[in-house]
Amino acid sequence: MIKIAILGYGNLGRGVEAAIKQNDDMELTGVYTRRDPAGLKIKTEGVAVRAASELENGRDDIDVLVICGGSATDLPVMTPHYAQWYNVIDSFDTHANIPTHFKNVDKAAKNGGKVGVISAGWDPGMFSINRVYADAILPCGQAYTFWGKGVSQGHSDAVRRIEGVKDARQYTIPVEKALDAVRSGSNPELTTGEKHTREVFVVAKDGADKAAIENAIVTMPNYFSDYDTTVHFITEEEMKRDHSGLPHGGSVIHSGTTGEGNKHVIEYSLKLDSNPEFTGSVLAACARAAFRMNKEGVTGAKTILDIAPAYLSAKSDEDLRAHYL
Amino acid sequence: MIKIAILGYGNLGRGVEAAIKQNDDMELTGVYTRRDPAGLKIKTEGVAVRAASELENGRDDIDVLVICGGSATDLPVMTPHYAQWYNVIDSFDTHANIPTHFKNVDKAAKNGGKVGVISAGWDPGMFSINRVYADAILPCGQAYTFWGKGVSQGHSDAVRRIEGVKDARQYTIPVEKALDAVRSGSNPELTTGEKHTREVFVVAKDGADKAAIENAIVTMPNYFSDYDTTVHFITEEEMKRDHSGLPHGGSVIHSGTTGEGNKHVIEYSLKLDSNPEFTGSVLAACARAAFRMNKEGVTGAKTILDIAPAYLSAKSDEDLRAHYL
Repeated sequence: MIKIAILGYGNLGRGVEAAIKQNDDMELTGVYTRRDPAGLKIKTEGVAVRAASELENGRDDIDVLVICGGSATDLPVMTPHYAQWYNVIDSFDTHANIPTHFKNVDKAAKNGGKVGVISAGWDPGMFSINRVYADAILPCGQAYTFWGKGVSQGHSDAVRRIEGVKDARQYTIPVEKALDAVRSGSNPELTTGEKHTREVFVVAKDGADKAAIENAIVTMPNYFSDYDTTVHFITEEEMKRDHSGLPHGGSVIHSGTTGEGNKHVIEYSLKLDSNPEFTGSVLAACARAAFRMNKEGVTGAKTILDIAPAYLSAKSDEDLRAHYL
Repeated sequence: MIKIAILGYGNLGRGVEAAIKQNDDMELTGVYTRRDPAGLKIKTEGVAVRAASELENGRDDIDVLVICGGSATDLPVMTPHYAQWYNVIDSFDTHANIPTHFKNVDKAAKNGGKVGVISAGWDPGMFSINRVYADAILPCGQAYTFWGKGVSQGHSDAVRRIEGVKDARQYTIPVEKALDAVRSGSNPELTTGEKHTREVFVVAKDGADKAAIENAIVTMPNYFSDYDTTVHFITEEEMKRDHSGLPHGGSVIHSGTTGEGNKHVIEYSLKLDSNPEFTGSVLAACARAAFRMNKEGVTGAKTILDIAPAYLSAKSDEDLRAHYL
């Protein structure tokens, strides 16, 4: 049994907990929190909730620590810190800062003799793997990544910060025409705004100026101004009834040519009812891989690109060769 | 530069040759054949065609030997034989015999201090990888593999052996309704015949009994009797004009649940204009991985399940982390 602990019990932490339950070779040995442990009720019976401070200096009941924090300020500090004592997994997703984060975790994990898998999930994660495989197989080609339909938490948060907004949910939606063009293998040139539209559901505060809110949304630089954005005002009840899930998904489509112009299209797509539960499931599989690699003497930072597929699976190499190959 | 040689210059060998041309870190250093080398004209200028016998005892101008032979009788002998002298790649695809083939290649490659990557391509190959990833992430789920629309060479050959048949081409076609059911995440029970139909184009010999040919096809056990099979008789000209390509493709679709019934669907699909050129491209990427792994001291048989994605790519780890992750 691989003894796994979770640090941080938000949506993602709960997703990891749900994934551990589905894997017979893993057990949850603790949930750690920076809040008051007494105030936290988790779903797994008989598992202790402890203060994050109890992780200091290493514990025997943890083979892998899955760190479920935010990429902006939590993970850049937490992952290198805990990598000195534990094999660690995170879902660091600020793409531009991955090289720096990798370097910091690599140093700490090598010093500690541990493995740190960073940026696991689906993008970065499974989508990255598919971009790399496709480019390696069809170097004369081009990859396109589409996201959605799904809830973008970053965009939802940005709308919530607008004056007069009580609650908001933002869906990223791939443009069907753009998807079709890419799938045809025609390698179209597409701007960001031509690939996706954005749909926003807003609960306005009483008496708020809806026209001003809508204008603030559609003109918001980086987040909305480059997109075709639709804003709907709804009631709190409608928000709760229709938009409480966190679905997401998307596609990586790579088209390329070989020989004398033969076209090939590779597509990897995800349709996810729950973004955090799927991401948590990828993190759990990476925890297994980190545990195994470390047992074989591997140390340092890794990404999912450095992990052979077989390491993620609970099945033996023999079983995989006989039944999955 | 990775020095690659090809043994066997059929459709697949030519596909590997085309792939090497597209990869700047590889060069083709020789094509080897069991036929008379003088009778073979290859597409790459300035590269020698030599007798397979010249491979014996090892050559300095080969880092990796890509063996393009048949799975029935060629590869079980050739791959272990050449693994004593070279890093080797094959596309062995008799699924039931993979464990035995792996064992034989593993022994030879370990003795020779080389890496032997077996069963590379897309199924086995990229489809296998996707079955393993999906099962590792969503263990409470089910995977479905669909093939086509594409030419099955085995089925085409089987039809060609029927009395009165001059030429034949068989297309495997996935059933749209079955695909839709699987994509919906409903985990349907599907027999082989419910997943695929078969379409056969036949050029009959002069005076042949077409009704007898059709009957022999649709009742052929294993190949056709369990499927909805349509037979078309066409002329030699039509065969040449409309059916000279070797397109193929298919999908691996895995649907599973997490938490309290959240559904997720993972789909990997390929649409290939040329099956041998795509397969050859996968083999070329595996040649790169074998070369690198061997340089790092790895020996023995490997499958694509044992290879981290980054090893297949010509790009550096830093580049992949910065731009593909």
